[in-house]
Amino acid sequence: MFERKIYEERRSELKKSVGSGLILLLGNEECGMNYADNTYNFRQDSSFLYYFGLPFAGLAALIDVDNDREIIFGDELTIDDIVWMGTQPTLHEKAQRVGVQTTMPSSALRGELDKAVAAGRKVHYLPVYRPEHVLKLWKLLDIKPGTETPSVDLIKAVVDMRNHKRPEEIEEIERACNVTADMHIEAMKQLRAGMHEYELAAILESVAAYNNCPLSFPTICTVHGETLHNHYHGNLIEPGQMVLVDAGAETQMGYAGDMSSTICVDKTFTPRQKTIYDIQVASHLAAVEMLRPGVPFLDVYERAAEVICAGMKDLGILKGDPMEAVKAGAHAMFFQCGLGHMMGLDVHDMENLGEVWVGYGGKPKSTQFGRKSLRLARPLEEGFALTIEPGVYFIPELIDLWEGEGKFTDFINYKELNKWRDFGGIRNEEDYLITADGARRLGKKIPLTTEEVEALR
Amino acid sequence: MFERKIYEERRSELKKSVGSGLILLLGNEECGMNYADNTYNFRQDSSFLYYFGLPFAGLAALIDVDNDREIIFGDELTIDDIVWMGTQPTLHEKAQRVGVQTTMPSSALRGELDKAVAAGRKVHYLPVYRPEHVLKLWKLLDIKPGTETPSVDLIKAVVDMRNHKRPEEIEEIERACNVTADMHIEAMKQLRAGMHEYELAAILESVAAYNNCPLSFPTICTVHGETLHNHYHGNLIEPGQMVLVDAGAETQMGYAGDMSSTICVDKTFTPRQKTIYDIQVASHLAAVEMLRPGVPFLDVYERAAEVICAGMKDLGILKGDPMEAVKAGAHAMFFQCGLGHMMGLDVHDMENLGEVWVGYGGKPKSTQFGRKSLRLARPLEEGFALTIEPGVYFIPELIDLWEGEGKFTDFINYKELNKWRDFGGIRNEEDYLITADGARRLGKKIPLTTEEVEALR
Repeated sequence: MFERKIYEERRSELKKSVGSGLILLLGNEECGMNYADNTYNFRQDSSFLYYFGLPFAGLAALIDVDNDREIIFGDELTIDDIVWMGTQPTLHEKAQRVGVQTTMPSSALRGELDKAVAAGRKVHYLPVYRPEHVLKLWKLLDIKPGTETPSVDLIKAVVDMRNHKRPEEIEEIERACNVTADMHIEAMKQLRAGMHEYELAAILESVAAYNNCPLSFPTICTVHGETLHNHYHGNLIEPGQMVLVDAGAETQMGYAGDMSSTICVDKTFTPRQKTIYDIQVASHLAAVEMLRPGVPFLDVYERAAEVICAGMKDLGILKGDPMEAVKAGAHAMFFQCGLGHMMGLDVHDMENLGEVWVGYGGKPKSTQFGRKSLRLARPLEEGFALTIEPGVYFIPELIDLWEGEGKFTDFINYKELNKWRDFGGIRNEEDYLITADGARRLGKKIPLTTEEVEALR
Repeated sequence: MFERKIYEERRSELKKSVGSGLILLLGNEECGMNYADNTYNFRQDSSFLYYFGLPFAGLAALIDVDNDREIIFGDELTIDDIVWMGTQPTLHEKAQRVGVQTTMPSSALRGELDKAVAAGRKVHYLPVYRPEHVLKLWKLLDIKPGTETPSVDLIKAVVDMRNHKRPEEIEEIERACNVTADMHIEAMKQLRAGMHEYELAAILESVAAYNNCPLSFPTICTVHGETLHNHYHGNLIEPGQMVLVDAGAETQMGYAGDMSSTICVDKTFTPRQKTIYDIQVASHLAAVEMLRPGVPFLDVYERAAEVICAGMKDLGILKGDPMEAVKAGAHAMFFQCGLGHMMGLDVHDMENLGEVWVGYGGKPKSTQFGRKSLRLARPLEEGFALTIEPGVYFIPELIDLWEGEGKFTDFINYKELNKWRDFGGIRNEEDYLITADGARRLGKKIPLTTEEVEALR
């Protein structure tokens, strides 16, 4: 937990920004895996963490903007709770740690909201992403499931604050990134042909666990890098293959690291692997080069895609002008994902609040295949923390689909492309902070080029 | 997944047992940690797994008992799904693997249920334990949250089948138990003073991960063994302490292992630690001794509690007749938890269906403190798989509470008891299968006595 005044200042700024009404922030509940009491590792809602810092289940908070009053709702422990789960500070003590003086039992929240609603006052709340939130809004505010209307004023205020990382947050993110880097470095050192993917995943995940860090997202560790979010870990790793790892650690306070690497199973990459890998690295470096305040991330994305298309043109897979291919959307044959995304208390920061607000400043997103997966497009500002993760993927199903549809035949040479259909996929990913006049890498450097990876094999 | 005919036979038996109507089994959904797409490790509902075997999110199944018809509801993958998550067999192919010929899109389920309801037919469903289930019953059957009425006929039929483990299940449970044993043995070998609890947890959890096994429940790994379900792992482990580990692995098919051990941080236990440890082991062995068909587990629990009370009497902490102390409930000062529970596809098997059905055969549970935590009391039957896990815990808050209330002064010598108030807690736990004429341990033996533990230190 940060010191008390951090939370007091954040709430004070939020109140000014929202202006009037009541702000209802719902904390998360425990989530049962296969029955109620067999719970997943508890994860507090990130906006609740940002403003109230308390990583405990079963809490809610109300900020009465007009009357400058803050209440945390929750229930004290019973003797059964203490026997089973251990003693804890009282709710009041916990609340005081984050500068909140008033606490009430959970059962009092409905009454407080009823008074506000009866007085015609606005109750701001954020978008729901867990079924429990849907049920809570229904119980607390009579909002029928599916008819939630989150407050755009609140979303915009929260996004604007959380998008601009303060020094204490950058320190935490950097801590997460350092553990994340160690996970990747350990994987590079330990990978051997004959392992299963899950054995390599166990090695890198245990680095996070040793540092008392949960994972910031489910680990990707696969010989099928062409599947962007592949969570299957059952394959045997064979000589000549590459393993794509996308994994990260989260600090105890909830800040995330997020890096990717693509590792040769042999001591070195084959010339064919190196050909594609070098295109990915060129794209990566071109993107990093452009990072500074004022530059629209959409331009960075297009530049990264252009470099990939230029590389594909050199291989005879693509024809025509690379940037024209990108504008048309043909690059999405190889580069289906976005270039990067905001990161912070969530690995895709505030994805629950809407990418349009977080990454587009309220402007609409493209619906074009590939481009629609770009989570960040807005002009960069000092304090943004983001990932850079271009990828080159050969997806047989997509090749067959587009070839069958005769799609982009002006740009794509399907005959040449099909020679690479079983290549797989390559992604590398680093984390950056936008500074006053440029950007700096967050956390230790992990090997990026083939030479750097080979040095650890 | 088991072979097809296992699932066909199970469903056939279920239909016979339920007799009429429709059986609705809801599979689980992905659960977002801090936003919808950042999901926890997916866990299928265990009853869905038992009858339909498919470990995929977003499924539901309908068994029309009267018309002997089975349908799996779900949605086929889109090209976006394939790009991001990889290709999979079609829903129809998956369904055929478990012997189901008919599949329909998720959107068709409401219509099928409407027809049944309009015809006045009974729709059986199981108790809900995730908020998503509450919302689904509301959407599918217009059941207002909080007014669910699960089918007792269905619960009894499912419990009766799942309580009696078949050979193919025993093999899976034994596999889980062997990995679980290795987790504990590794912890015993690696524990050193100066580690944090989370470092020891990382070591033992990585054993599960190396075997491609998720954890069957959140790991307990604590120097505060007196807290029964302590999930905090932040303490430094110091010389002279004991570490209580309660941890288990789950196979890819969902079957659980569950063992506990209490490990001395030094090479040997202190005489004071050994005194209590030996009482726990005596209780454990007395319980194991009694395991055989026909013996009510309530009797086994009372015998285990009696042994603990006899040990406490020898120490001057307890007075009077040990069994009278147990009948009165005074043993719950030291032994607050139950003696054991069913295990299978859930580590507390079918806890979501109700302990009264699973462990009490429909008979009411005691409300007495301590005794109310006993999950299993019914006469044992061949095929039951269960844990044996007596514990001895000194809980300062409970001592102060009962002493303040003057509770059980006929049995408890509070002056002597207070000399042990900071002792901590000890639990050991093994898994057993009830056989035709007794019981056998499931999985490898882990060290049980102080001598056995010390041999690994």
